[in-house]
Amino acid sequence: MSNDIADRTRKTAALYFDGVEDEKPFELWRSFDKELGKELSLFITGRMYAREKLPHKTRQLVTISALTVLSRPDELKLHVKAALNVGCSVEEIVETIFQTFTYGGIPTVNTALKVVRTVLQEKGLWPVDNSREQ
Amino acid sequence: MSNDIADRTRKTAALYFDGVEDEKPFELWRSFDKELGKELSLFITGRMYAREKLPHKTRQLVTISALTVLSRPDELKLHVKAALNVGCSVEEIVETIFQTFTYGGIPTVNTALKVVRTVLQEKGLWPVDNSREQ
Amino acid sequence: MSNDIADRTRKTAALYFDGVEDEKPFELWRSFDKELGKELSLFITGRMYAREKLPHKTRQLVTISALTVLSRPDELKLHVKAALNVGCSVEEIVETIFQTFTYGGIPTVNTALKVVRTVLQEKGLWPVDNSREQ
Amino acid sequence: MSNDIADRTRKTAALYFDGVEDEKPFELWRSFDKELGKELSLFITGRMYAREKLPHKTRQLVTISALTVLSRPDELKLHVKAALNVGCSVEEIVETIFQTFTYGGIPTVNTALKVVRTVLQEKGLWPVDNSREQ
Amino acid sequence: MSNDIADRTRKTAALYFDGVEDEKPFELWRSFDKELGKELSLFITGRMYAREKLPHKTRQLVTISALTVLSRPDELKLHVKAALNVGCSVEEIVETIFQTFTYGGIPTVNTALKVVRTVLQEKGLWPVDNSREQ
Amino acid sequence: MSNDIADRTRKTAALYFDGVEDEKPFELWRSFDKELGKELSLFITGRMYAREKLPHKTRQLVTISALTVLSRPDELKLHVKAALNVGCSVEEIVETIFQTFTYGGIPTVNTALKVVRTVLQEKGLWPVDNSREQ
Repeated sequence: MSNDIADRTRKTAALYFDGVEDEKPFELWRSFDKELGKELSLFITGRMYAREKLPHKTRQLVTISALTVLSRPDELKLHVKAALNVGCSVEEIVETIFQTFTYGGIPTVNTALKVVRTVLQEKGLWPVDNSREQ
Repeated sequence: MSNDIADRTRKTAALYFDGVEDEKPFELWRSFDKELGKELSLFITGRMYAREKLPHKTRQLVTISALTVLSRPDELKLHVKAALNVGCSVEEIVETIFQTFTYGGIPTVNTALKVVRTVLQEKGLWPVDNSREQ
Repeated sequence: MSNDIADRTRKTAALYFDGVEDEKPFELWRSFDKELGKELSLFITGRMYAREKLPHKTRQLVTISALTVLSRPDELKLHVKAALNVGCSVEEIVETIFQTFTYGGIPTVNTALKVVRTVLQEKGLWPVDNSREQ
Repeated sequence: MSNDIADRTRKTAALYFDGVEDEKPFELWRSFDKELGKELSLFITGRMYAREKLPHKTRQLVTISALTVLSRPDELKLHVKAALNVGCSVEEIVETIFQTFTYGGIPTVNTALKVVRTVLQEKGLWPVDNSREQ
Repeated sequence: MSNDIADRTRKTAALYFDGVEDEKPFELWRSFDKELGKELSLFITGRMYAREKLPHKTRQLVTISALTVLSRPDELKLHVKAALNVGCSVEEIVETIFQTFTYGGIPTVNTALKVVRTVLQEKGLWPVDNSREQ
Repeated sequence: MSNDIADRTRKTAALYFDGVEDEKPFELWRSFDKELGKELSLFITGRMYAREKLPHKTRQLVTISALTVLSRPDELKLHVKAALNVGCSVEEIVETIFQTFTYGGIPTVNTALKVVRTVLQEKGLWPVDNSREQ
């Protein structure tokens, strides 16, 4: 059973963060406390993320919404990459961010959009096609 | 064109808030300033919500995530009802709220779960079937 | 000199809170710690509020803006009353609250508007004349 | 091993919440999702709280500080009771709350002090001796 | 009528942001979504800012208060420049920021003061005359 | 008496910030307003910090908790140094930060851990011994 959860943690982490070269939170935690770092990974990735009650794409958009309104750009950067990894389109990510304006205000939207721009620039995908004017 | 947007606002508001008897924000705004209240409705409901770039169900889960981590229980109550109106299941709403724990902490999860419980009690749908123990 | 500051504290408190019957923060502080309660009053009311660098009306609108976006309705209720005491109109208070929408989102605007409504109801000034439709 | 952690969870929960009759978060979680509720308890109580790296009294003051500045009065009420259970004095709890003024502002201090007052009133310990005037 | 609002948006934007060379939010929005970017500009600048219910100077101080306590330094930088453009003095801006200490704590005051310093340095107006010691 | 408080302010400031070369808040305040800067120092350092109701070590951990969940990394950096100055161990500081996860979420924990890492790197104390794996 404890092998199960370690295994699920590894697979879920790979699904989300494959190819992401930024420092991952679990690397940071472990540099301070190996044991707690492992427990946090097992819980967050192996318990929360591995649940099958929301599709991975929806789960990531929900996460992006939370990180946008809380204004956590470092964590958001990781999860924009994770969202792309599990199949979210740039347009869905951007629309999720704009959607938070009504609830969290425009400055956190702007910060989040700049994070998306940075990710797209790193991937050579900037500028986006924005010619959706009426 | 300005008829179009007024029309879209009415239809979108109906889709989300049909049968919701709590005071709606636009009623509150108008009791202070009729003109601004109308402009806010046209913009928020007619412009933001009427966009077709995210399915309504996803848009509501994104909104529930934002309102949970910001701890806005009054607004959340409206949007839990709106989420049910556009077809989200109780399980999806609850999972979205639990998912925010990692990013916004557990107290705002608890507040949001109590809001969901109140909505379900009002609708005679409480307690939920929670027998998902392994 | 220490008489000066105590005197200024009393006068400023009277200017803002005359006739306000809600529990005042300094009463709460003193019920836990008389000395610290006194120091907090002298500093906040006697030092910060007694400065003459912003007109009292502007200072109160600035405070209402901060309390709105932070969502502190108890404190806001006191300062809506203080704002009326120093000469702000209901319309200026309401406009200040609406103005924060862009920066802090709509749910905190709604909470603040409900606080204003409660104050106006207590004073027999509700409903306001909102017939400013074009 | 998984017995160990369940056992540690129970003992730690008893240490903190013995005699506390308010609804506990794990009861709320379980009413929505038994399995996740159990996992959250095992992690939060069994992993985080059972660590021996901070004395329980210090850990509770640290928690009270966080809950004060985040303005989470429901959760704070539970943890004021838990702090008393593990041996914090009323004076230490109150001083911790006042100490956050500089960092989080006075409105959240006021909200937290009212929570402490409610707890002390429930226990028949109100008013406190506040005769510490110079 | 829709020409009116476009016109008011342009005039209000010029009043606030003339000579400001930082990236403006509407440029950021449009780089992702031309249509929504335009709608946001028309609403925020043309509807909210163009209202005549608060003098522009007061409106900017109210905005600076909100951005200070929410800790949004990028947005604040733009609005410190806008505040100077519509006639606020450095002293009024700084006093507004200090005034938020009581409500939002000192760290956000410090962040905001550093933003003001940066703006003044860019304009060659640093250091300010601070010789107001008694 | 006013000499007393000035004296206590100096001694308390020395205890906390001796050897800390980062810009101190009181230097920032004074560069804008000498008089208010002095009053803020006297109040925050001389009144709040000089109280003897919590041991300095506990007071600093309480402060670190507040600054972590509010995500104020600049202020946190100063107080991690102050905590080390008054005798907190790195392990106590880190455990305090991890303890806030449950209440404020993981992104602010991560930001705070990075601040600690920066402080330890400046002091030549990085990496820490983290070999506490079971």
